[in-house]
Amino acid sequence: MPRLELSITGIHSLQEVAKGDDLAELIALAIRSEKLDLLPKDIIVITHKVVSKAEGRLVQLETIIPSCLAEEWAKLHNKDPRVVELILRQSHRIVRMEKGILITETKHGFVCANAGVDCSNVPKGMALLLPKNPDLSARQLRDSLVKEFGVSLAIIITDTFGRPWRDGQVNFAIGVAGLEGLRDYRGEEDTFGRKLEASVIAVADELAAAAELVMGKTQRIPLACIRGFDFQEQDGSGQSLIRPLKDDLFR
Amino acid sequence: MPRLELSITGIHSLQEVAKGDDLAELIALAIRSEKLDLLPKDIIVITHKVVSKAEGRLVQLETIIPSCLAEEWAKLHNKDPRVVELILRQSHRIVRMEKGILITETKHGFVCANAGVDCSNVPKGMALLLPKNPDLSARQLRDSLVKEFGVSLAIIITDTFGRPWRDGQVNFAIGVAGLEGLRDYRGEEDTFGRKLEASVIAVADELAAAAELVMGKTQRIPLACIRGFDFQEQDGSGQSLIRPLKDDLFR
Repeated sequence: MPRLELSITGIHSLQEVAKGDDLAELIALAIRSEKLDLLPKDIIVITHKVVSKAEGRLVQLETIIPSCLAEEWAKLHNKDPRVVELILRQSHRIVRMEKGILITETKHGFVCANAGVDCSNVPKGMALLLPKNPDLSARQLRDSLVKEFGVSLAIIITDTFGRPWRDGQVNFAIGVAGLEGLRDYRGEEDTFGRKLEASVIAVADELAAAAELVMGKTQRIPLACIRGFDFQEQDGSGQSLIRPLKDDLFR
Repeated sequence: MPRLELSITGIHSLQEVAKGDDLAELIALAIRSEKLDLLPKDIIVITHKVVSKAEGRLVQLETIIPSCLAEEWAKLHNKDPRVVELILRQSHRIVRMEKGILITETKHGFVCANAGVDCSNVPKGMALLLPKNPDLSARQLRDSLVKEFGVSLAIIITDTFGRPWRDGQVNFAIGVAGLEGLRDYRGEEDTFGRKLEASVIAVADELAAAAELVMGKTQRIPLACIRGFDFQEQDGSGQSLIRPLKDDLFR
């Protein structure tokens, strides 16, 4: 049996990204400046922050007028009412609003704290929203980078979310292009010849989690390249990882 | 900046494990037979199945007499009542019992489907329970393997769980020894000099997820070695990843 080995490389030389920048070009520059030769089926994992910044999703808080609900919640829990207002505007509905924690379903369908609105790693007085359509962003980046490097690639755009029941946050896939986010083993046989009944693995989330290990929070490593993961080329999507409401026991 | 690179190597030559086997010895054999030289701070990730098998956690279903509740639920949802009974016995309490899905809190505190009771990759007529004390198992394996190889190592024992809101399962850390499962960034400064407020990353879960990418479900790869992840040596524990009930909004 050949050795199964995966490598994850952090790419640190992406410059600070601003609205309107050609992110694919900046990513290509960073990859070239680190003399990283891309190979077919490399997976480029990108923290959503740089995507959001390029897409102009930084919001100046002074432009936001909070609603009554936002004012009240903010006062109660010592938050910035403008940030709370932004969270409510990004939300499709509220899942939990308890103990100062605001878990909502975003307009994309992600269930996470604060609708993904983020005030860390952004200039003072600003907040950063999730990309409007992370799958579209992933597809566009993939198209450009495949053209640029002449090899097949997959793209995963990520954000770190908390989880029920477990402490700590983990990186998740919110936008996917070029691979199927779920690997379905159902119907295949286990080592005892028994058909697997319930095994669907969220590989895009596992790839996102793996990439976070080289990204860190305080270092500026917004990109990683995962090599050696075998996958079938597919359009893929981050939306496919969202459990439909009707099957969900916790919304 | 030096390149940050992580490698994950699947270790496939572990023999089928049986009750009473010295698992550390079998793991050492597998590692040596693949000529994998361990380095300080390598992290050995182990699927719980081989730990459970070595610890005699395989149960013959014919020895299990189902309770009324187990019989009823099994009948309603076309399950094996003996497996349902085992799930109930392994549970501390029921979190959801709906649509044929049984989410419970295990005696260890893990919230997962079927209390981790598993009928795949085990002989017919049997079911496999989680290790009784995965942290203790991890500590014992670590002690033996550190002695055997003469380098510092960390151990993570894993299981794949489903998640609310998202489809597909992901590998999680249920037993940890030798590293802190949570990486706490609170108080550190982001790239804009702002103090991070809410950033605690569940690195043990991310390492578990990363390892699954080389393990697969149908191949027999119960072990992986992760190299290049920088961590401080600590006792660590999988229990530290469980959110206390009082802070949980979804139990």
